[in-house]
Amino acid sequence: MARTEIATLGEFGLIKHLTDKITLQQPTTKKGVGDDAAVMAYGTKRTLVTTDLLLEGIHFNLEYVPLKHLGYKAVAVNLSDIYAMNGTPTQITVSLGVSARFSVEDLEELYAGMRLACENYKVDMVGGDTCASMNGLTISITCLGIANDKDIVYRNGAKVNDLICVTGNLGTAYMGLQLLERERIANKGVRQGDSIPAFEGREYLLERQLKPEPRRDIIEQLRELGIKPTAMMDVSDGLSSEIKHICHQSNVGCAIYEDKIPIDFKAAEVAEEMNLNIVTCALNGGEDYELLFTCDLKDYEKLVTMHDVYLVGHITKPEYGTMLIGRNGEELELQAQGWQAFNN
Amino acid sequence: MARTEIATLGEFGLIKHLTDKITLQQPTTKKGVGDDAAVMAYGTKRTLVTTDLLLEGIHFNLEYVPLKHLGYKAVAVNLSDIYAMNGTPTQITVSLGVSARFSVEDLEELYAGMRLACENYKVDMVGGDTCASMNGLTISITCLGIANDKDIVYRNGAKVNDLICVTGNLGTAYMGLQLLERERIANKGVRQGDSIPAFEGREYLLERQLKPEPRRDIIEQLRELGIKPTAMMDVSDGLSSEIKHICHQSNVGCAIYEDKIPIDFKAAEVAEEMNLNIVTCALNGGEDYELLFTCDLKDYEKLVTMHDVYLVGHITKPEYGTMLIGRNGEELELQAQGWQAFNN
Repeated sequence: MARTEIATLGEFGLIKHLTDKITLQQPTTKKGVGDDAAVMAYGTKRTLVTTDLLLEGIHFNLEYVPLKHLGYKAVAVNLSDIYAMNGTPTQITVSLGVSARFSVEDLEELYAGMRLACENYKVDMVGGDTCASMNGLTISITCLGIANDKDIVYRNGAKVNDLICVTGNLGTAYMGLQLLERERIANKGVRQGDSIPAFEGREYLLERQLKPEPRRDIIEQLRELGIKPTAMMDVSDGLSSEIKHICHQSNVGCAIYEDKIPIDFKAAEVAEEMNLNIVTCALNGGEDYELLFTCDLKDYEKLVTMHDVYLVGHITKPEYGTMLIGRNGEELELQAQGWQAFNN
Repeated sequence: MARTEIATLGEFGLIKHLTDKITLQQPTTKKGVGDDAAVMAYGTKRTLVTTDLLLEGIHFNLEYVPLKHLGYKAVAVNLSDIYAMNGTPTQITVSLGVSARFSVEDLEELYAGMRLACENYKVDMVGGDTCASMNGLTISITCLGIANDKDIVYRNGAKVNDLICVTGNLGTAYMGLQLLERERIANKGVRQGDSIPAFEGREYLLERQLKPEPRRDIIEQLRELGIKPTAMMDVSDGLSSEIKHICHQSNVGCAIYEDKIPIDFKAAEVAEEMNLNIVTCALNGGEDYELLFTCDLKDYEKLVTMHDVYLVGHITKPEYGTMLIGRNGEELELQAQGWQAFNN
């Protein structure tokens, strides 16, 4: 039988390949594969569903991620997907695969983090599955949410001349990861308890990596201002990859201005120390869990009053492509490095 | 810090320990942890959610499970949980962790099996997550379903004198697994393609292990006859473990009659060959995915007209305990061996 390596398709190619043949037949299914969450009509409101699988050694490294933070983050990234649909998360289910390396106390820590995220965002943990594993820790979380049909924001609604906005700052979670990784290597051979990692003044970067907060506050601001974005998603793989998803699904192009991309100054400082280009980190770093959305020009006056929202560009005709405009006006095609873990 | 081994609590003890502190705060949550599925009220109907995590080497062995069957079974066991609530499954999400050992063609096989189960049971695959893994194959499936509030059957409604029913036969999937395992060991050292496993005439046992069918037909029969069970769950861990769940949650006891437990004659034959007690296999074997339910005595006349439903005992006062009545009238307390994988 033919053997095609998964790496030749990449993550998105693989998912498209495997899900292309699916035909939907349930009248309650309104939107299947292809957005931050699926959409179902069980009643007057819509129900949203999203799911994430986290594997030890791929998505997290317990050498520097405390279990409580890991639990918090595992929930947070799912909530982020529901907010990215302009919905409200309501319930999660949690499945764990746990090897004998872990104790009951370890799992209590993990659960404490998950419970804290649930409490902070008023979400109920309603079920799951816990089983033995031979290889480390596996966490699978599914999040349900609700939204009015008319409020749901998909990825495919961006129109020519729409404004492109991002929240918070980008590349910071990636720089936090670099800091953790550098310290991990530096501390190898040092006895436990001896090392004091040199993170002083850079706690924010670590927090962005270890304990991201989904942007419920932005969704609430948008509601209060009466703004409905034309397209939206959360930034889990980096701005380049995400804006290309929106452009592809909306059949439009974009111009992103390099000097408008929000960068944290501490992140920039660490990037310089490490000889990394912070803009490249912001475009491709991933795990920021900020929101990326597009809005009609008519909302401009309201948008500029929003806290922690930044205009980074505008939507163009599709033939223009997905472009990054450099500081000197030069135009570069955005590259979606995204997620290449299958090559490892 | 104290270290408590997970094995000291066991699966159910661990889940109880970790989920005891959960407080539900969402008005849409009607039932959280503790049944075959969680129950939410998003509209006039109820929404059901269940989830399962399957890990290579723990839940399946690819040496004898074809990927297409694995995909089918992974979906089937989730559908079974929704039927066990007397609901109708409607959507699934699928998350996969896949190591570089697997090719695109392998995943196509897996998906073909999942799609087939979806088609057979009219369920939509609406989303998921696919990522690289360092260690084999991980499958996480979440299933959504719907039910009228008044139709949902929980585990806690069994009453004294209710009849106890099981569908199909028990222990057969376990005997199928024993056959596969025996052949795997016998074929070690044999070149691939050389071996013809000695399964002739025993295909049914293999099918029960490799491609279980959730009992939608039973749910449909119950509806047509106007029977609403007082308690119900699916038999995934063995009859002993499951009836003890129902008795515990309903605060009742039970008497199960050994000679009433439905046994497939081929399964009994293989058990004898292997020096196994088929009744022990039926009580503790697991993976049959049959339904276990209790009914009010008034439904007796209707129950006996049902196809593939067997009366195996009755519900007693709690002080009687959960008893197995042997062929000679001797009484034995049922032992829930259930799932002890954390001891491995």
